[in-house]
Amino acid sequence: MDLAMPDAAARLSALRAVLASAGVDGFLVPRSDEHLGEYVPPGGERLAWLTGFTGSAGMAVILADRAAVFTDGRYTTQVQAETDGSLYERRHITEEPPEAWLREHAPGARIAYDPWLQSEGTLKRFTGVQLVPLSANPIDAIWTDRPAPPATEVRVQLPEHAGMSSEAKREAAAAQLRAAGEDACLLADAHSVAWLLNIRGRDLSHTPLALAFALLHADGSVRMFLNAPERVPAATRAAMGNRVSVEPREEIPAALRQLKGRKVRIDADSTPAWFAATLREDGATVVAGEDPCRLPRAMKNETEQQGARNAHLRDAVAVARFLSWFAAEAHRGGQTEMSAAARLLSFRREVEGFVAESFPAISGAAENGAIVHYRVTPETDRAIAAGECYLIDSGAQYPDGTTDITRTLWTGPGAAPAGLRQRYTAVLRGHIALSTVRFPEGVAGPHLDAIARRPLWGFGLDYDHGTGHGVGSFLSVHEGPVSFSRAAKVVPIRTGMILSNEPGYYLPGQYGIRIENLLLTRSAEPQPDQVRPFLEFETLTLAPYDRALIEPAMLSPEERRWVDAYQARVLAEVGPLLDAPTGAWLAEACAPL
Amino acid sequence: MDLAMPDAAARLSALRAVLASAGVDGFLVPRSDEHLGEYVPPGGERLAWLTGFTGSAGMAVILADRAAVFTDGRYTTQVQAETDGSLYERRHITEEPPEAWLREHAPGARIAYDPWLQSEGTLKRFTGVQLVPLSANPIDAIWTDRPAPPATEVRVQLPEHAGMSSEAKREAAAAQLRAAGEDACLLADAHSVAWLLNIRGRDLSHTPLALAFALLHADGSVRMFLNAPERVPAATRAAMGNRVSVEPREEIPAALRQLKGRKVRIDADSTPAWFAATLREDGATVVAGEDPCRLPRAMKNETEQQGARNAHLRDAVAVARFLSWFAAEAHRGGQTEMSAAARLLSFRREVEGFVAESFPAISGAAENGAIVHYRVTPETDRAIAAGECYLIDSGAQYPDGTTDITRTLWTGPGAAPAGLRQRYTAVLRGHIALSTVRFPEGVAGPHLDAIARRPLWGFGLDYDHGTGHGVGSFLSVHEGPVSFSRAAKVVPIRTGMILSNEPGYYLPGQYGIRIENLLLTRSAEPQPDQVRPFLEFETLTLAPYDRALIEPAMLSPEERRWVDAYQARVLAEVGPLLDAPTGAWLAEACAPL
Repeated sequence: MDLAMPDAAARLSALRAVLASAGVDGFLVPRSDEHLGEYVPPGGERLAWLTGFTGSAGMAVILADRAAVFTDGRYTTQVQAETDGSLYERRHITEEPPEAWLREHAPGARIAYDPWLQSEGTLKRFTGVQLVPLSANPIDAIWTDRPAPPATEVRVQLPEHAGMSSEAKREAAAAQLRAAGEDACLLADAHSVAWLLNIRGRDLSHTPLALAFALLHADGSVRMFLNAPERVPAATRAAMGNRVSVEPREEIPAALRQLKGRKVRIDADSTPAWFAATLREDGATVVAGEDPCRLPRAMKNETEQQGARNAHLRDAVAVARFLSWFAAEAHRGGQTEMSAAARLLSFRREVEGFVAESFPAISGAAENGAIVHYRVTPETDRAIAAGECYLIDSGAQYPDGTTDITRTLWTGPGAAPAGLRQRYTAVLRGHIALSTVRFPEGVAGPHLDAIARRPLWGFGLDYDHGTGHGVGSFLSVHEGPVSFSRAAKVVPIRTGMILSNEPGYYLPGQYGIRIENLLLTRSAEPQPDQVRPFLEFETLTLAPYDRALIEPAMLSPEERRWVDAYQARVLAEVGPLLDAPTGAWLAEACAPL
Repeated sequence: MDLAMPDAAARLSALRAVLASAGVDGFLVPRSDEHLGEYVPPGGERLAWLTGFTGSAGMAVILADRAAVFTDGRYTTQVQAETDGSLYERRHITEEPPEAWLREHAPGARIAYDPWLQSEGTLKRFTGVQLVPLSANPIDAIWTDRPAPPATEVRVQLPEHAGMSSEAKREAAAAQLRAAGEDACLLADAHSVAWLLNIRGRDLSHTPLALAFALLHADGSVRMFLNAPERVPAATRAAMGNRVSVEPREEIPAALRQLKGRKVRIDADSTPAWFAATLREDGATVVAGEDPCRLPRAMKNETEQQGARNAHLRDAVAVARFLSWFAAEAHRGGQTEMSAAARLLSFRREVEGFVAESFPAISGAAENGAIVHYRVTPETDRAIAAGECYLIDSGAQYPDGTTDITRTLWTGPGAAPAGLRQRYTAVLRGHIALSTVRFPEGVAGPHLDAIARRPLWGFGLDYDHGTGHGVGSFLSVHEGPVSFSRAAKVVPIRTGMILSNEPGYYLPGQYGIRIENLLLTRSAEPQPDQVRPFLEFETLTLAPYDRALIEPAMLSPEERRWVDAYQARVLAEVGPLLDAPTGAWLAEACAPL
């Protein structure tokens, strides 16, 4: 994919010509592909190909005489750098959303969209214009060297990792449909398909998916649709059993026609509008409802929970080797953000079962650490020097679990300045508060977010991102439905959910701090006079915090005890798996504060 | 009003006869009156008159062959005691709501309702039956000795208490309508009318309201409608000025007819369904929108803020006299829940400006304290003995402010048992945490609720009520739109809002603990590197906590310093206003822990 800017004008002109010949006034270009997920394969990068913007969320709106790219606050800088301001206005996607921009600049206009790339939920916001679905995406008509869709081998997620048979999952999901009086459910979220059928693929760089759709029937049978069905080998077909068919994507329209007169559940937020529209045309009754896989997928079973512990322990070996290496090397000079990230990846590649990074690592030294979603490139790569703050946020995919860890490090030598230590310790106190909170069933992510922020808030400081997100089991590192965020929906936290705990603080132009562990939700031991079930978190991630950044005097005795106990646990569990020099380093790093 | 149970069967029979002759299958009997507020005048107590249930929230549904009373968890015991189980099923209003009960027992039936007593929001939930509005309430037809509506004098809320002219308020509210392209707004919430016009009345026992409706026009003029307009004296009319008319309630239909062709804003949650239905019939366009007085009313201006401080300081004198009296008397025996509450009221009556209790005091000794909304009656009145826990939650209306305070006291002599001290101190720690939290603008009540619960949660304990509610300025002690509750809407907390901070713990059959202060929201002093505005709370309530219930070893050094500083402030501000013996007691009560 060539994203060089000189092409952008030619591409935009070509697109406008196609739109004009189609008789429409404009076109919506979302970031998503047909599965509406966070990551898309190269051939789905239409927004990037057209505009140059490569961020993970955004939308472009193209009119005959003007065009705009809409992104959120994370990408304000990036969109300026990657797109041509003479072609595209840049707008904040929530403060000046595309629908408002369209009402202002093209009231009543005929605005086309690709119904495979937008959910009904998104389209509903576009009032004041006339939306026109297109049967083919006009970008595909001009993107002549568009990469073919991925067609990696579809493998079985083995029982020792999945912990529950596909049959049992299908039966439980089908029972939900029957209880609601529904005949079928359309799953466009490839994560749901993967979870339901206990299959994985390599269609995306960081999430082990085969990009597939599925039709789950109320009798528990499933029709799976994907490109190149031949990529499902016999062993996988055998494991799925004879109640799961594997069919080419081209069969979807015919399959929907067979649902005439039936009640079909569609999750309006995770399903392209094309499905509900087509089902209605075909005479089916579309019922809005939640993807029946969403909640059970988030509540990891015992096998997945133990898998997560195992994966985190193995991952911790790579992390310890990295941290030990960094402690010895960083202050000497000669390393850069890219070389450090590459070093961590090389350690991870040696870990048993390593499949891929679970997302592109964020490796930011000094002022680059203050850019929350910084992605180092050869152009921005910065040398790491002595006396600096360095942030690394990374993770890996293993068949038994997905990891995601952030540590903030002082390159040394010696301790960090008092101001930096004060802020690091405030972030750490919030991280500890969330790690240790117990709460009754029914409490949701938006209710706990403030617990992690309170120590920073006391200094008038905050961070512009959520405190944490759900994490999949050898699936996406960002998984719903729960997140520690005031903006999140109120969905009660449940046992088995894996959630990140990652408060931070960013001082623009100077440094970024973030401390992230993954937490596993479990039942808390009942206490005297307790009348309802309580939940608590087990920390999965095993890596020391950098003592050069901690100001022990700011910690309460309980907080200090918690840090000491956690680091002692890290040493006890990870230490025995390390080579001698790394083990010696870890022992020192994990000594009581 | 005679609520004796023997009448209940006759009343229910009579109502059923009226319903049968009206040709309907059932009838909804809500607790509310035409203003949908929390408190109603005696003539509006239809639910209590019919069923006997006197709680502040609930609904009855009457069918020809069965009937049910629906209440929330606060009133489970009370509804059993007050209603006749042979006449009424008792149901939990959220777990088995009336609409579900009706769908089960009377699917498709013609269910009548009084459109003056129900909001459109409530009615929308009743699917599966045919709702029939009635032009007259059938209970009124059989309630022959129904008290006349109150018609107390309508007085001016003086500028030195209101702090902002009615003209300025009307202009600001009208500007909201103009900005939205609306011609008028119907205000059914009598609190909004009182705030907007700077008037108060005595129609209700605990809230200084005249029960009035108002039509606010986009030009800032107002038509006020109430029964007995002659109760608005010339001085009040003069203060309101010539752009506010005072008209009898009977003029409302004609006034609505004049709005034909206009856009009229209606707050669907706080307005009887009758208004929107009538406006639509009359050819007006009804626009759903928030009551434009709701937010500005909650954000007290500087004068109201200073009034609140003054009212709390005077109220604190009565509270200190009570606490001192209680400390000397309670352990001796001879007092009861009623005598103690009466003593506090007698001290309050001596306070300058005292108008009324802001709600019926909750005075609960030992196991009665564990009943969250306990209202002592001659039948339940319990002696207060030595060695007991006692909870008193009370407040007062003053022209400059409304108070609401809860203290939990150990009758003594000596210190309370360790278990009780542990739980009191956990509640106190939550109360301190909420008192001291700083937070950025945008944070809402549901986000801070957990901060007050966390210490109790650590013991697997919790309380079944919100942590706090908004409080009016010489208006209702329960005021929207913000409350510290996970169930509350996400409405950002703003400067000038007065909110209660009242975590608790209740051990059924043994004792109840609640600690309540009122908090005033203000801007926090900016700190280094702060980039957005932060808010914090100023504590308004001035009364010591009972040191016999505090376990100092459970407090962090900061928490202990906070208690000591707060109690020193109480002594410094309240002490000089007390007689010598009370002052001496307060000095001892406020000594450092």
